[in-house]
Amino acid sequence: MEALVYHGAGKSAWEKVADPELVDPTDVVVEVLATTICGTDLHILKGDVPETKPGTILGHEAVGRVVEAGAGVRSVSVGDRVLVSCVSPCGQCRYCREQAYGQCLNGGGWVLGHLINGTQAAYVRVPFADLAVHPLPSGVDSAEAVLLSDIFPTSYEVGVLNGGVRPGDTVVIVGAGPIGLAAAATAKLYSPGRIIAVDLADSRLEAARRLGADVVVRADENPEDLVRELTGGLGADVVMEAVGVPDTFELCTRLVRAGGTVANVGVHGKPVTLHLEDLWIKNVTIRTGLVDTYSTPVLLDMLAAGKLPVAELATHRFRLDQIEEAYDVFGRSAETGALKVILTAGS
Amino acid sequence: MEALVYHGAGKSAWEKVADPELVDPTDVVVEVLATTICGTDLHILKGDVPETKPGTILGHEAVGRVVEAGAGVRSVSVGDRVLVSCVSPCGQCRYCREQAYGQCLNGGGWVLGHLINGTQAAYVRVPFADLAVHPLPSGVDSAEAVLLSDIFPTSYEVGVLNGGVRPGDTVVIVGAGPIGLAAAATAKLYSPGRIIAVDLADSRLEAARRLGADVVVRADENPEDLVRELTGGLGADVVMEAVGVPDTFELCTRLVRAGGTVANVGVHGKPVTLHLEDLWIKNVTIRTGLVDTYSTPVLLDMLAAGKLPVAELATHRFRLDQIEEAYDVFGRSAETGALKVILTAGS
Repeated sequence: MEALVYHGAGKSAWEKVADPELVDPTDVVVEVLATTICGTDLHILKGDVPETKPGTILGHEAVGRVVEAGAGVRSVSVGDRVLVSCVSPCGQCRYCREQAYGQCLNGGGWVLGHLINGTQAAYVRVPFADLAVHPLPSGVDSAEAVLLSDIFPTSYEVGVLNGGVRPGDTVVIVGAGPIGLAAAATAKLYSPGRIIAVDLADSRLEAARRLGADVVVRADENPEDLVRELTGGLGADVVMEAVGVPDTFELCTRLVRAGGTVANVGVHGKPVTLHLEDLWIKNVTIRTGLVDTYSTPVLLDMLAAGKLPVAELATHRFRLDQIEEAYDVFGRSAETGALKVILTAGS
Repeated sequence: MEALVYHGAGKSAWEKVADPELVDPTDVVVEVLATTICGTDLHILKGDVPETKPGTILGHEAVGRVVEAGAGVRSVSVGDRVLVSCVSPCGQCRYCREQAYGQCLNGGGWVLGHLINGTQAAYVRVPFADLAVHPLPSGVDSAEAVLLSDIFPTSYEVGVLNGGVRPGDTVVIVGAGPIGLAAAATAKLYSPGRIIAVDLADSRLEAARRLGADVVVRADENPEDLVRELTGGLGADVVMEAVGVPDTFELCTRLVRAGGTVANVGVHGKPVTLHLEDLWIKNVTIRTGLVDTYSTPVLLDMLAAGKLPVAELATHRFRLDQIEEAYDVFGRSAETGALKVILTAGS
């Protein structure tokens, strides 16, 4: 088959590789119908994720069809169309029993395109299939459902649920890329009083408006003053960090009110400064997290009912074998306006 | 009357001052029967708390007798013996309505010995008396109850409750001063699996053992390895920071397991480094807080029932007019072994 193989910092190629095979009886092999590129893939490509070794096939998001299933797999069968989750949980360890699937202790968690071969390929082996793949309702489009592999559960669990968004809250989302936009869309489910999106790119702020932001503000136009003004001087109830750099995290800790929550969704490569000399007295909660995907079944129900604005996020579409071009368009998103680029198999 | 007056960084004196008077109808004036010295008073004396102006009487902890009550006070009467809480809440603002009394928006919160005259005096005016003072059951000793002005509710609310201690948890308390020790004693109420106390002073680690720590370890003897070993490599479920310096906070973030909580109780004067490059993926919760004192009535019930080991913490006793000597003993605690020094009125 062909696949996108990582060859060390800055290097990757769409090339011929061996087809995947079942290894453990809990595996399935899935023929990829749709996949997409994540900001995390760009981090890996830059060499920021040293545990991803050269030779690994990239990608942790897919919709596909089960073509082989191990003897121990109970929840899906050959022929089923499934969502491949970015997290593959063993389902049995301490963390999995507490639904912290992303922290799986038995070699599961986020492994696809990270520690083992991923989904940017014609076929992918998915371990721990009973919890890692989800049968798809027939009415759901593969190119839309693929956004539930990672970004929707991540934004919802790590941003909205960890943030504890409640009706009437002032919610600030710093970073209006795909994750921030999915956070805006899913924060709406809790009827916040207002959602304020902060970004440097006007095109992303416009997308934030379409996806549910009530107020948008450029990061270089003093979001602190605006948030204080809109909240009677208090600050925001919930602030989500959806960028992953020190400046934006520190901005979040200045935007949050006493008693509020900062939910960090961004993937960070550097330490940040935490101003405890100001924050110790403020009853602030800061939460971090890798997605666990416990919300995926509910999100799939919402998708099937037409209640998630996934189509808004899918700005570009390519054939799977055009993936190098897709990476280029996604990597230059400030210029191309790309949010999520969707890759589908076939012609 | 006489009182301990702050005169700018490094300077204070026990001196004659005017008696306090009622200012607002919600005030009481209390004759001080017992008071104590807090680590925060030492911070103020060093000049670390710029909002405390020279001329302010220090102290935010007391038991006393109501000698005057404003016309609007309903919950106590002249003659009642009361606990004076370190927090004086208006009871009406948004934060007070949500029991976040420490964040009171109407000029309440922690004001005694901070923004207005405090309790290290023969008499003290207490604003917002209906919520700021608590009638004391007759069987309760004043010199013991005074530990419920601040350290017990602080340790319990900001450490144990914010930390979310649950039965079976591994709880690490970094810093075995009075706050850390009260945290150990109140963490016990939730039946943790083990409490591990970390400090640099052997005398404090011995006190930690008496107050409920199952394991003690010197901060310079690799607590990280010990905690990992005791938790099968995972780390602690709950870690409490009870010191207030960058090194100990950063240690806490290394001791916590994925999915665990760091509850910051320490008063910090400097920023800390938060290693988000490690923590973003770990589902960690970090909470800060000033005490709200919503737990004080329940703690008083426990005290009356003999279920709080307050006496263990009261290592030294002085007359109120010996307060300068008491500060000296408290300030040299590493040498003197002082935990809480209790000052009582009269001979």
